Amino acid sequence: MAIPVKLALETVVMTPEGSRRKDEALAVEIPYKVMLNDNEIGASMVLPTGLEEFGPGFLFGQGYIASPGQVVEVWVCPEGKISVYADVPEDSAPKEVIITSGCGGTGKISKDMLEGAFKPLDEATITFPEVREFILEVLNRSKLGQETHCVHGCGFWADGKLKAFFEDVGRHNAVDKIIGAILLGRFSPAGAIYTTGRLTSDMVLKCARIGIPIVMSRTAPSSLGLAIARKAGVTLAAYARPDRLNVFNRPDRIAG
Amino acid sequence: MAIPVKLALETVVMTPEGSRRKDEALAVEIPYKVMLNDNEIGASMVLPTGLEEFGPGFLFGQGYIASPGQVVEVWVCPEGKISVYADVPEDSAPKEVIITSGCGGTGKISKDMLEGAFKPLDEATITFPEVREFILEVLNRSKLGQETHCVHGCGFWADGKLKAFFEDVGRHNAVDKIIGAILLGRFSPAGAIYTTGRLTSDMVLKCARIGIPIVMSRTAPSSLGLAIARKAGVTLAAYARPDRLNVFNRPDRIAG
Repeated sequence: MAIPVKLALETVVMTPEGSRRKDEALAVEIPYKVMLNDNEIGASMVLPTGLEEFGPGFLFGQGYIASPGQVVEVWVCPEGKISVYADVPEDSAPKEVIITSGCGGTGKISKDMLEGAFKPLDEATITFPEVREFILEVLNRSKLGQETHCVHGCGFWADGKLKAFFEDVGRHNAVDKIIGAILLGRFSPAGAIYTTGRLTSDMVLKCARIGIPIVMSRTAPSSLGLAIARKAGVTLAAYARPDRLNVFNRPDRIAG
Repeated sequence: MAIPVKLALETVVMTPEGSRRKDEALAVEIPYKVMLNDNEIGASMVLPTGLEEFGPGFLFGQGYIASPGQVVEVWVCPEGKISVYADVPEDSAPKEVIITSGCGGTGKISKDMLEGAFKPLDEATITFPEVREFILEVLNRSKLGQETHCVHGCGFWADGKLKAFFEDVGRHNAVDKIIGAILLGRFSPAGAIYTTGRLTSDMVLKCARIGIPIVMSRTAPSSLGLAIARKAGVTLAAYARPDRLNVFNRPDRIAG
């Protein structure tokens, strides 16, 4: 069941002065079907790691699963299928959907999610020594990102330590894997998520919906990403570095 | 009809030593509905520029429009709707779809597109002096990207000049705008496209389908992006810089 996550190959580096051979590593991107209670919900392109987490996280992002406790069982078939069994109503599919702009494509969010009310968030704070350790640990673990330049990394921090880390060809998918781990009961959402990807609407939305109070990114939010953070009361920290956060909303959860 | 593409706001830069105010610019991300012959096909998050091009490009990416000449008319309603009228069969919707992993989310591609045969490409070559001018012009025009760090830029080069340039919160959307311009008959696909985003499967697939022979990116391809380039005979140049291309497929279209 060891599915490779990278391919080695030889490329040609061309310059005005001439050409030379170069070894490169490519991130593996393959389609996986996601099933819910034996019904095919969709197929998604993924980096084949953290697939047990990806299945429920994807279904949460698409609006089929709403909360931890609903997921009963996940089976990953290496031939390209993730089967999630969950205690959800048969008509749990979202009605009106919006295709998302973001980097990583769970692909769509529902209008209800975007316009509905948010549940109160579990509270959490993070200190600067923790921010430093969190970011350095995520970046240090992002080996595939460093080698292939084609994956995003995403980590989750709570109780003074890194609870999870995932990579994916899509920034969305990496967040979905974290959310899947929460849905599988591995840890509570009361903590901080850090992604190397941009915080467009759908990224912030799914974090707010699962109840993560602190959302951090190496890079920028979009206007709608920030609007959702404000509406949901999420702390949004962009351009996150070990010793610097550019806080766009709710700085009170960042402790000195 | 001047829809703003950025928002100015004040954020808090926090460090272990203290906080200070900072002005930031945010890229505007808003949902637009895309209609085909008065039927709603979907809604997508976009940067509100190049919407006339985005409409047909989006419908092409989703498999509803197949070629230039089919598009009859496009109406953009600033309240959030792009109405495309096109000469397509009523059942032009793709059957089995795969949700994409990529950064920018037109969201889905059809299984047929991925597994089907590709039409022969119109031929084109690009020289290094052209590569230099092309990339520098795109990067120079990517003002919003420089200000907001939340948009991707994409340009198209043929006949020795830059034919089009677009930005979007999604790397896919920016490519869709270029493809839309081709569908609107503004220029032939026989040229080179350069994107600041990664070349995952769907990015390469839509370029190959519309017939663009040279696909260049500032960053990396994924394994499946390369596999599609090989199958379609597309030149794939990654890590593109003014004086350097790392060519993963068909280097013969790059002239010294």
